[in-house]
Amino acid sequence: MSRASLSDKQKKSVDNTGFSPNSAAEGRRLVNRDGSTNLRKMGLPFYERISIYHSLLRMSRVTFILTVFAIYTSLNILFASIYFFLGADSLAGSQSATSVLERYLQAFFFSSQTLTTVGYGHISPVGFVTNVVASIESFIGIMSFALVTGIFYARFSRPQAYIRFSHNVLIAPYKRGKALMFRLATYKNNHLTNAEAEVTAAVHLTENGKTQTKFYQLTLEMNKINSMAISWTIVHPLDDNSPFSGFTDQDFFEGKLELMVSIRAFDDHFSNTVQQRTSYTQQEMIFGARFLPMYERSENGQYTHVMLNKINDYEVVNFDA
Amino acid sequence: MSRASLSDKQKKSVDNTGFSPNSAAEGRRLVNRDGSTNLRKMGLPFYERISIYHSLLRMSRVTFILTVFAIYTSLNILFASIYFFLGADSLAGSQSATSVLERYLQAFFFSSQTLTTVGYGHISPVGFVTNVVASIESFIGIMSFALVTGIFYARFSRPQAYIRFSHNVLIAPYKRGKALMFRLATYKNNHLTNAEAEVTAAVHLTENGKTQTKFYQLTLEMNKINSMAISWTIVHPLDDNSPFSGFTDQDFFEGKLELMVSIRAFDDHFSNTVQQRTSYTQQEMIFGARFLPMYERSENGQYTHVMLNKINDYEVVNFDA
Amino acid sequence: MSRASLSDKQKKSVDNTGFSPNSAAEGRRLVNRDGSTNLRKMGLPFYERISIYHSLLRMSRVTFILTVFAIYTSLNILFASIYFFLGADSLAGSQSATSVLERYLQAFFFSSQTLTTVGYGHISPVGFVTNVVASIESFIGIMSFALVTGIFYARFSRPQAYIRFSHNVLIAPYKRGKALMFRLATYKNNHLTNAEAEVTAAVHLTENGKTQTKFYQLTLEMNKINSMAISWTIVHPLDDNSPFSGFTDQDFFEGKLELMVSIRAFDDHFSNTVQQRTSYTQQEMIFGARFLPMYERSENGQYTHVMLNKINDYEVVNFDA
Amino acid sequence: MSRASLSDKQKKSVDNTGFSPNSAAEGRRLVNRDGSTNLRKMGLPFYERISIYHSLLRMSRVTFILTVFAIYTSLNILFASIYFFLGADSLAGSQSATSVLERYLQAFFFSSQTLTTVGYGHISPVGFVTNVVASIESFIGIMSFALVTGIFYARFSRPQAYIRFSHNVLIAPYKRGKALMFRLATYKNNHLTNAEAEVTAAVHLTENGKTQTKFYQLTLEMNKINSMAISWTIVHPLDDNSPFSGFTDQDFFEGKLELMVSIRAFDDHFSNTVQQRTSYTQQEMIFGARFLPMYERSENGQYTHVMLNKINDYEVVNFDA
Repeated sequence: MSRASLSDKQKKSVDNTGFSPNSAAEGRRLVNRDGSTNLRKMGLPFYERISIYHSLLRMSRVTFILTVFAIYTSLNILFASIYFFLGADSLAGSQSATSVLERYLQAFFFSSQTLTTVGYGHISPVGFVTNVVASIESFIGIMSFALVTGIFYARFSRPQAYIRFSHNVLIAPYKRGKALMFRLATYKNNHLTNAEAEVTAAVHLTENGKTQTKFYQLTLEMNKINSMAISWTIVHPLDDNSPFSGFTDQDFFEGKLELMVSIRAFDDHFSNTVQQRTSYTQQEMIFGARFLPMYERSENGQYTHVMLNKINDYEVVNFDA
Repeated sequence: MSRASLSDKQKKSVDNTGFSPNSAAEGRRLVNRDGSTNLRKMGLPFYERISIYHSLLRMSRVTFILTVFAIYTSLNILFASIYFFLGADSLAGSQSATSVLERYLQAFFFSSQTLTTVGYGHISPVGFVTNVVASIESFIGIMSFALVTGIFYARFSRPQAYIRFSHNVLIAPYKRGKALMFRLATYKNNHLTNAEAEVTAAVHLTENGKTQTKFYQLTLEMNKINSMAISWTIVHPLDDNSPFSGFTDQDFFEGKLELMVSIRAFDDHFSNTVQQRTSYTQQEMIFGARFLPMYERSENGQYTHVMLNKINDYEVVNFDA
Repeated sequence: MSRASLSDKQKKSVDNTGFSPNSAAEGRRLVNRDGSTNLRKMGLPFYERISIYHSLLRMSRVTFILTVFAIYTSLNILFASIYFFLGADSLAGSQSATSVLERYLQAFFFSSQTLTTVGYGHISPVGFVTNVVASIESFIGIMSFALVTGIFYARFSRPQAYIRFSHNVLIAPYKRGKALMFRLATYKNNHLTNAEAEVTAAVHLTENGKTQTKFYQLTLEMNKINSMAISWTIVHPLDDNSPFSGFTDQDFFEGKLELMVSIRAFDDHFSNTVQQRTSYTQQEMIFGARFLPMYERSENGQYTHVMLNKINDYEVVNFDA
Repeated sequence: MSRASLSDKQKKSVDNTGFSPNSAAEGRRLVNRDGSTNLRKMGLPFYERISIYHSLLRMSRVTFILTVFAIYTSLNILFASIYFFLGADSLAGSQSATSVLERYLQAFFFSSQTLTTVGYGHISPVGFVTNVVASIESFIGIMSFALVTGIFYARFSRPQAYIRFSHNVLIAPYKRGKALMFRLATYKNNHLTNAEAEVTAAVHLTENGKTQTKFYQLTLEMNKINSMAISWTIVHPLDDNSPFSGFTDQDFFEGKLELMVSIRAFDDHFSNTVQQRTSYTQQEMIFGARFLPMYERSENGQYTHVMLNKINDYEVVNFDA
């Protein structure tokens, strides 16, 4: 990158990003496209570094259901083993069980009937110890399902922005000059209002073999929007105030830079503030292109259709003359 | 519309509304009276475009209960069929069932007793496969009801503003001139404080057969109110700063315009921010009218009655002289 | 009241309180001490004016539990009656019931065992109709308890400020003049930070037999406090900027005025904004008094004790000379 | 402490901290390291001073589970005693019980089967009174578990900042002078953005044997940070504007002072505002030390490792010359 162009202009970099000037690793981005960071927390035992709650909420739907089912099965196996080792007399109605396997299975089914509190009663606990174990198991069952109820609720009530970003950042014609542009839209039946955007550029400069990172808050043509109805094209004019002013195709391509994007808005329906983050590196930038419209009138003219599959549609433009 | 009056004055239009200058369809409003928009999201598979959670929360109470009951019945039918195909010996206590229908019904009732975990036990599962199925069914039952518990809670804890708007916007006398006025009140036993109003006018101008939309942020006499105790009349003075200054009855009637209204407030009881939106088109405007009071003293003088059925009551006024 | 003193000074009244200048009823306050208003919403059918959710959350703990128990009993009676009218053969295990009363009671107990899904099974449903009814009843049982779970959670998770206000407003010596003072403290094991106070005075003026109300935002010595640790004395100096400057004991006593108080803060533990309101009328004002300290060192010097029973303790002072 | 240095400079102290100038007890801090205060609320009956909800949420995980289990057992004992005193005929299936102890145990197990709604049915209630009691017990069981479900959810969904603070405040070299420094980092898999810091110094001055406390809002080099990615070193420059400017090692050591720290941020994942507080006294300050870096590149260069065990690592520096 023509490093000179940056330092010459003495652009004012910022240092309140929370990232360190030395945080750039070889070729890795600071913020991933899904908004997560490439930081790992170390130096504490695992259970202290992990918020079980955060983990349970972040896992995918399928992983979550499998996890719950695995815990359910484990508890069943644990208690089935206890009933089994308490002997053949501990469960009434299981006398018909002749083999060891059959006895174990009946213990297992009794356990599952106890854990879920379905309690048919065709198998029932006999004796003090078995009754105490069953009493504890049904208590554990109810407690577990209380927990699961809460986590289920937490999972689907978690405020989410459901924003889709264009895959590329375009360097497009803008007024008499150029501008960096990317766009975004909500892709679900949610509606965001009072949306705010913040874009920070991280520029990695290598000097004497040591990589330093400088951060710049980018000026946006519009950093607030009343309603995210159709789509929102975020525009950073490449004027004199931009840290990238005068950059050529080559400068962008050779440089190592990253745009860290944060969108914050108010979910109209749930009255919640939601936030979503992403980032773009120079490899996702296209020099000389402009976005094509992504909405159209419905055939009967009644509705405006927002075409989410066209969010990255662009056409190439030339910057000569 | 006397388009000239708008362009002449070079009123400053805004472009951060999230709607496009080309978004006006034939005769349709941008925002419906219930606050929803006439946008449709396309270009993604259905399941990606839909947040099940948003949908479950938006459906009416009756639809929701019927949906849950339908799922409950479907699950019952599914599991009943499994028990049925496992044969007559799979369920103890069902020997009395002689016909195929009777056998199916007993499988159905056993299923429902398992799904709800009521488990009377007069019908009970026999054999490995049946027991495993019953164990899974009771697990599914508990999981489903955990989900339903969460959705129930989410539905009735959803922050709502419960605001009723007057049906019409009146062009009424105001000080020495005129003003656009509409009013609103909370209609339930909720109490809102620190309410804020924002009104954006969308004016559709047709030039050379092509319709363009311009947006204007309207100045309000008072855009914040401490407490929404009685009712709130929102007033936009038609003075020189208004994009509609000098408009006549005819101008409003012939024009195609829309007022997009957004109210945001703090729910005193739940400590939540709530928001409600609506819109008015020129067809809901009345030129030359003023609102009548909508509250009165109770007979014993102890209370102030807010008469919600009078929220749109107005009297006609003349603007001559 | 020496009305002159108010109008002479041309204090700037405000009109964004949400209350009407005509809203004062005979002798009633606008805002009650518990923060509610004396407004009644009319003109809509009952079920439209009521948010069941708000009602269920506002009722006292005892009323709420009795309501839930009453609904539980009503459902039991309803379904017991259905089982009873389905005949003696509809419930197996109830043959021992000989009298009509005994049959009804067994139907009742079967119903309760179904509704709570306890389902012992010593009474069990027989026949198609009974089984369908039992299946529906257990479904309703689970749905109801899902609802109750949500409401329980909503009730005790509702953000509450738990602020206790002094019973009186004192007109106390302050610097070289006087000031209106009242104080407040949190009385539970909650901790509030960033607390903000807002005090609006409503002054009812009677002219030609017609009562008009004027509203004034009172200037406070400190309207924001970092942490509500001990107690907070809110002070409105009666200086030239006060609408009450120059008021005598007599003026306060004869006047009809009301201080509407709103406190908003951040609950440290739940990360919620909480709000509490109250009001004082002239009858709760004491001319010439000052608050006594309400905290003391514990005997071992380890703790500071906040004595909540002393929140209204004051001593009389003279204003002569 | 060289009290003069403070009063000489006439630093502007603040009085909106919520703490009283007289609140300093002998040697105790105002705010503990875990953010709690050394205040005790008195003068009200216990049940009025306690928010059960706050208490249930603050107790440790183990205490909470033991509390719930204790309540479960107590309810069981209570109802078991009732069934026991209703006589041997009140429970069918318990005839096999011969001794008094065996009868009590069976009553106990029946009670637990009713409370958890597992209801096997091998023991079942007989007679009007027993049935009514069982009906009430299963109702109480469901209500209790509804409550527990809610509290479980509230406990793990409670917004928490999970911030770890350095153990010490360092007086470190800063530009051409010195600065107070401490640092903090999130230690779990949560991510905070838009973090804000507020530091208030409490200085206890003893004059004529009476201790007075003065409060100062400390100016921070940076009191807001975009993203709390790695760690955040909070810096208060000891320049002319600092209440501690010119303080020597001795001044800090002899003085009685306390830094009250409050961090507020936005949890990226849950869209919640979270807050955490701590404090430092002069005994936790180190004169002449500077923090060592606490992050490093992973071996493969792919990740940045935040070493939480190094959060307090510092090296000694000399301030001579």
